[in-house]
Amino acid sequence: MSEPLKVAIAGLGTVGIGTIQVLTIHADQVAARCGRPIQITAVSARNRRRKRDADVSSYVWFDDPVVMAKEADADVIVELIGGSSGVALDLTREALAAGRHVVTANKALMAEAGAGLAIEAEASGKTLAYEAAVAGGIPIIKALREGLGGNSFSRVLGILNGTCNYILSTMDATGRDFDDVLKDAQDLGYAEADPSFDIDGVDAAHKLAILSSLAFGTKVDFESVYVEGIRNVIAKDFEYARDLGYRVKLLGLTGELDGGIYQWVHPCLIDAHGPLAAVDGSFNAIIAEGDFVGRSTYEGRGAGAGPTASAVVADLMDIAAGRFNHTFAVPSEDLRNAASVQVEKRVGAYYVRLKVLDQAGVFADVGSAFRDHRISMESIIQRDHDSDGNVHVVIVTHDVLESQMMDALEDLEKHEAMVEAPHFIRIENLGGE
Amino acid sequence: MSEPLKVAIAGLGTVGIGTIQVLTIHADQVAARCGRPIQITAVSARNRRRKRDADVSSYVWFDDPVVMAKEADADVIVELIGGSSGVALDLTREALAAGRHVVTANKALMAEAGAGLAIEAEASGKTLAYEAAVAGGIPIIKALREGLGGNSFSRVLGILNGTCNYILSTMDATGRDFDDVLKDAQDLGYAEADPSFDIDGVDAAHKLAILSSLAFGTKVDFESVYVEGIRNVIAKDFEYARDLGYRVKLLGLTGELDGGIYQWVHPCLIDAHGPLAAVDGSFNAIIAEGDFVGRSTYEGRGAGAGPTASAVVADLMDIAAGRFNHTFAVPSEDLRNAASVQVEKRVGAYYVRLKVLDQAGVFADVGSAFRDHRISMESIIQRDHDSDGNVHVVIVTHDVLESQMMDALEDLEKHEAMVEAPHFIRIENLGGE
Repeated sequence: MSEPLKVAIAGLGTVGIGTIQVLTIHADQVAARCGRPIQITAVSARNRRRKRDADVSSYVWFDDPVVMAKEADADVIVELIGGSSGVALDLTREALAAGRHVVTANKALMAEAGAGLAIEAEASGKTLAYEAAVAGGIPIIKALREGLGGNSFSRVLGILNGTCNYILSTMDATGRDFDDVLKDAQDLGYAEADPSFDIDGVDAAHKLAILSSLAFGTKVDFESVYVEGIRNVIAKDFEYARDLGYRVKLLGLTGELDGGIYQWVHPCLIDAHGPLAAVDGSFNAIIAEGDFVGRSTYEGRGAGAGPTASAVVADLMDIAAGRFNHTFAVPSEDLRNAASVQVEKRVGAYYVRLKVLDQAGVFADVGSAFRDHRISMESIIQRDHDSDGNVHVVIVTHDVLESQMMDALEDLEKHEAMVEAPHFIRIENLGGE
Repeated sequence: MSEPLKVAIAGLGTVGIGTIQVLTIHADQVAARCGRPIQITAVSARNRRRKRDADVSSYVWFDDPVVMAKEADADVIVELIGGSSGVALDLTREALAAGRHVVTANKALMAEAGAGLAIEAEASGKTLAYEAAVAGGIPIIKALREGLGGNSFSRVLGILNGTCNYILSTMDATGRDFDDVLKDAQDLGYAEADPSFDIDGVDAAHKLAILSSLAFGTKVDFESVYVEGIRNVIAKDFEYARDLGYRVKLLGLTGELDGGIYQWVHPCLIDAHGPLAAVDGSFNAIIAEGDFVGRSTYEGRGAGAGPTASAVVADLMDIAAGRFNHTFAVPSEDLRNAASVQVEKRVGAYYVRLKVLDQAGVFADVGSAFRDHRISMESIIQRDHDSDGNVHVVIVTHDVLESQMMDALEDLEKHEAMVEAPHFIRIENLGGE
C-alpha cells in the first residue's frame, strides 16, 4: 500500500470533530477504497484546551491556521472555519500557493471567492474540493460534475436551506406564526441567534450560485442571485395554499432563459402531491433536469456534523485515490460570463393575498385591476375575516410575466379598500410523472 | 489537449444510439471536463443495414463484437448487448484480457459474473464500470462508491424496476387488475412481450445484488437474493392499503442482520406519506442509510435510452479523465463472503388478506390462530363481499418474526372457512422526518 495522504484540519467544531471520527472509525474502509490510508497530521482551532468528542492530542497543534496551511506536514488542508474572507480565504490561498490540496465546507467562500480560488488551484495543479459546501447529505457536486456530466441542463432547483425548511414545515404542521416558530428553532439549535443569514435566503443563495456554475459552465456569480427570504410568509398562507393543493417551500432555482442564466431564491407554492412536497424538516433536496437523464432528484440532510463530515471525507478520498476534477468541472478559462436574467423576466403563476375592507365591489375592482394588466386569473376567493373585520382575498393567476404582475400589484396597492400592501408568492411547476 | 479516448460500442439499440448522441451533441463539454475528447472509433451490431437515429457510417464496422473487443482501435469497449453469459460475457473478457477498459449497462452480467470479471479487470489494471446497470437516471454506483464512501451502511433499499412500478402505480390509480394493466404496459412498450424478468423481480434482484456488494463490501451474490414478484397483488390490495394509510411498492432491500447480509426483493406496503410513496410511474428511487450521512435518497428514471446513455457517458468520462475505481469499490481480495440472511429471519409487520366464507365465528377463529402463534394484531377488519358471497378479512400485525408468521398462515390455511390460501404483503417502515 502506498504512502498515506496527510491531512491537516483547520477548525475543530462539530464538523471537524466529525471528520476525525469518520477517518478514525472507517480508516480501513477508506484505505481499501483509496489504495492508501488517510492520516491526520495536524489541527488548528481557536481554543486548544476546549473539551472535544475526539482525542486530538496526537496531532501537531497550530494556533494559527494560516501558518498551518503553509507549514504543516500535510498534502491537504481541510478548511472548516467559515466566512467568505479573513482567515478562511487567507489559509485557502496560502495552502494552494504552498502546493497543497484544499477541501472546504465553506459555501460563502466558494460562492464569493471561488472564481479566483479556482484559478489559484489551477496554477498550483492542486484540487480545490467542496462537496460539503452544498447539502452535505447529498453528493450533488459529484453528481452534477461527474455522474450527470454528459448532460446539458435546463434547470437545477431545490430546497437548499434546512433552517428555512424546518421553519416552513413547522408553520405548516402547527398553524403557528413565523416569529413564534423561529424562536423555538433557535431554542432547539436549528436556527442561529442571528438567523438572518438563513431566513433571508443568503445561505441558499451561496449554494445556488455554486450549483449554477457547475450546471451551466458559468463563472460563479453570487452577486447576481435574486434573494427573497421567508419573513413575509404568514400562517394563513399555509392554510390557503393547502386548500388550493399547494405547499410552501423556499426554493433556489437556476436555469437558462433568453440566452442568459437566472439564479433566484424565493418562497414558492408547489404542488402538494408533486416533487419536493414531502421534503420536510431540516432535509434538503435538489432536482437536476438534464437533456438526456431527464429529472434526477436528490434528498438528504443539509447540515449537521455527520452529513458534512461524510462529504469532507468523500473529497479526501478522491484526492487520496488520485481522482482529479477541475474546481468548477472545467478549466476556469472555459467558464463563461453569462448574462444574469432578472426575476422581472420570470413567467409563471402567482398566488396573491390581499387584505381589504369588507365592502361591496372589492371583487369587481380587483378583477378589473388584473384585467387592465391583461392578467388572467385562475381563481379569486374571499377567505377569513380578520379580527379587525377586514377580509383576505386570495387570487391564483395563470402564467404571466413578473414585471406585468408587479405593475398590477402596484396599482392594486393604491386602491382605497386595500388595508396593506398585497402579498404574493410565486407558484412553481416542478413537473411530475 | 491530450489524445482522445477511443471507444468502440457493441450493441446499437436505443442505448447505443443514445450514447452516440450524447458524445456527439455534447462533445465539447465532455472534452472540457475530461481534458481530452472522447471519440467513437468502432461499432458492432447484429444488422448493419438497419435504419438508426444516428449516422454510424464513419465508424469501423465489426460484424462480431467479440472480434471488435480484441481488434478495434479502442481504449474502451462499451458493452450494450445484454445477458449474463454468451456474447456479452465473452466480449467483456476478451476486452479486459486485451488491456481495454469496459463500460457496461448489463446488470445481469455484473450480478451473475461480476465477481470473476472484477478479478480479470484487476489483473489487467483496467476499469470495469457499470453505472448504467442500476437505475440509469440515478448516479447511485458513484454515490455509494465515492460520494458516500466514508460511511458504513445499515441498509440500502429502493424501487429498482420501472416496469413493476409503472404497473403498481397504474393499478393503484385506476383500480384495474394486474393482467389488464400488464397488457396495456406491453402495448405501450413499458413491458416486454415476455415480462417475467421484470414482474417476477429478477431484474430488481440483479440490481440489488450489485448495490449490496458496493454498500457492504461483500462479494456480489445474486444467487442468495430472495425474490418475490408482483403477480399476486390484486386490485383490492391497493384499496385496502390506501384505507390503512399505505401504498404498495416492489422494493429491493439489503442490509446487515445477525452478522450476515440480507438481500430481499418483494412487494411492500409503505407509509403513504413517507419516503418513496410518491415515486410513481417508471421512476426508480433508492435510499441509502449511512452511519454519518443519515438517510440519503435518489430518484430518477430507471431505464430508457437517455438516462442509460447518460450513465454510460459518465463512466467514459471517468476513464477519459483518469479517475480510477475498483470494480466493487475495493480490491476483490478485500471483498468478504457474507452469510446470507434468509427472509424467514425478517422481523416486521405484515398485511394479511384472507378470503373466507361469510359465517359466524370466523373473526374469533382467525384471532385465536394468531394468538396461538403469539402474533399480536394491530387491526382486523372485515372488508367487501366478493361476487361469490365470500368476504375479505384484512389483518395488520405488529412486528413478528417471518417464520412465526408463516406458521400462523399455514395453520389458517387449513381452516374450513378459508376459501383460498392467505395472501400477505410485508409492511416496511422506511423512516421519515
